[in-house]
Amino acid sequence: MRVLCDYLCLTGLLQKRSDRYWLADESALYLDRHSNQFIANDAIEVYGGGTLAEGFEHLVKAVRIGGTALPQAGTLAPEHPYWAKFARALAPIGSANAKLLANLLEYPSSQPVRVLDIACGHGHYGIAIAKQNPLAEIFAQDWPGVLETAVANARDAGVVERYHTIAGDVFSAEFGERYDLALLANFLPDLGPGDCDRLLAKIRPSLAADGRVVVLQCIPEDDRLLPPNGPSLALSLLAQTPQGDVYTHRELVEMFKQAGFVRTEMRGLGPSVRQHVLIAHRH
Amino acid sequence: MRVLCDYLCLTGLLQKRSDRYWLADESALYLDRHSNQFIANDAIEVYGGGTLAEGFEHLVKAVRIGGTALPQAGTLAPEHPYWAKFARALAPIGSANAKLLANLLEYPSSQPVRVLDIACGHGHYGIAIAKQNPLAEIFAQDWPGVLETAVANARDAGVVERYHTIAGDVFSAEFGERYDLALLANFLPDLGPGDCDRLLAKIRPSLAADGRVVVLQCIPEDDRLLPPNGPSLALSLLAQTPQGDVYTHRELVEMFKQAGFVRTEMRGLGPSVRQHVLIAHRH
Repeated sequence: MRVLCDYLCLTGLLQKRSDRYWLADESALYLDRHSNQFIANDAIEVYGGGTLAEGFEHLVKAVRIGGTALPQAGTLAPEHPYWAKFARALAPIGSANAKLLANLLEYPSSQPVRVLDIACGHGHYGIAIAKQNPLAEIFAQDWPGVLETAVANARDAGVVERYHTIAGDVFSAEFGERYDLALLANFLPDLGPGDCDRLLAKIRPSLAADGRVVVLQCIPEDDRLLPPNGPSLALSLLAQTPQGDVYTHRELVEMFKQAGFVRTEMRGLGPSVRQHVLIAHRH
Repeated sequence: MRVLCDYLCLTGLLQKRSDRYWLADESALYLDRHSNQFIANDAIEVYGGGTLAEGFEHLVKAVRIGGTALPQAGTLAPEHPYWAKFARALAPIGSANAKLLANLLEYPSSQPVRVLDIACGHGHYGIAIAKQNPLAEIFAQDWPGVLETAVANARDAGVVERYHTIAGDVFSAEFGERYDLALLANFLPDLGPGDCDRLLAKIRPSLAADGRVVVLQCIPEDDRLLPPNGPSLALSLLAQTPQGDVYTHRELVEMFKQAGFVRTEMRGLGPSVRQHVLIAHRH
């Protein structure tokens, strides 16, 4: 146990002081049962085994063919069970980041707002806006098995009456229209550049005239080496998706420009959050 | 390939400059075919698969029982084939470090010296002394399959006439006597504390009156966290040996004291070498 704990100190998960071991701050945030971002059980299943681990078992082939070596489209196969587990595993982190995002967007609570939450997962990004603004209506799109988790979270948050679901594939689902906001939280990196273009082209006409797309994801520097979670995420995406990638700010801006958006702005979510926010304006 | 290379930059194996990738200095030392310390082929076999990987597959059990979960004694089983591969894989690194060690020991070349090289592996530590001193006689102990590599290396170095072998288990082999020097290069960490004590007790009477034991290995600080290869090595030893460990300077000094050695001194092998040298004097 001492050998294991020393090794975990080397990785930064633990700290050692006078022959006793302590959780490092970041470990405590996610691994202490009393933390509101405790993720251990589901996260171990998602990150330490299952589909992601299978993808990494065939990493050499993935590098050779330039995309996942998993059957069909890896985790992008229709209704892949990975995403329901992923939604449960990431919910505690999502919930904390969602509050930051809702604060950043600062919708006045006296004004109705229609929100399209694309590939909503656990749903917390839309739910946080609904909690902040009693006139907000959320339309959440994802696979049916994932929406079960999102709806349960909306119910727990007391906003389920204003929480509507759009079940099915992101490219064939009917989004509807006149959205003030379309959320893309950690979804574009799962897609190749061509599918990103297709998706943005589909989103734009579903927005109101002054509608915005809000992208939340890891957005690395142009050299893609910083922040350090960028290269790790890119490797995971290579292992499990056909064409997923971690897009730089420059690449995202170009995508939105090509899709007809007139203006983008980049925002941070907070000093301890490694993801960034890109807001793209329809007009 | 770009995704893989970015990830290798994150790990420090590669560096990226203006969208081109380069081997980091330490990677080039071991992975460039033109480097005299090129280890890639055999090292991948030893470190990336085989017995070590098997041991890590059962790491949870190893942590629970406090030693390898591999059958028998893991890599310490008699004539385990791991060591012959290991000797070939580590030879390039051993050869470079052996020159540094021979220089550090500074035996006058006009004086006969009898060297016992215990668990000699590739044999380079003894061989370097033989090359430096034409009157040196080397007695190399290890499993028969490992000694084949050591003898071949001695032949390549032109010292095979002064290279004698002692084949078999370290605890039952007849060492002989009147050695000026007993080398223990990266061997004590494979043994538990009890076996270290047994081995030092066996070595002492085989030394000449002014004989010395020269230990070369990773010797971490008292907290065992530095240098960073310490915790990694300790975890590997847990995975593949029954009781192996990375001993601190304090622990080694106590072992030699218990075995009747009168004095120890600690030396460095060079700024780029993460191993240290402990010299223990019989009298």
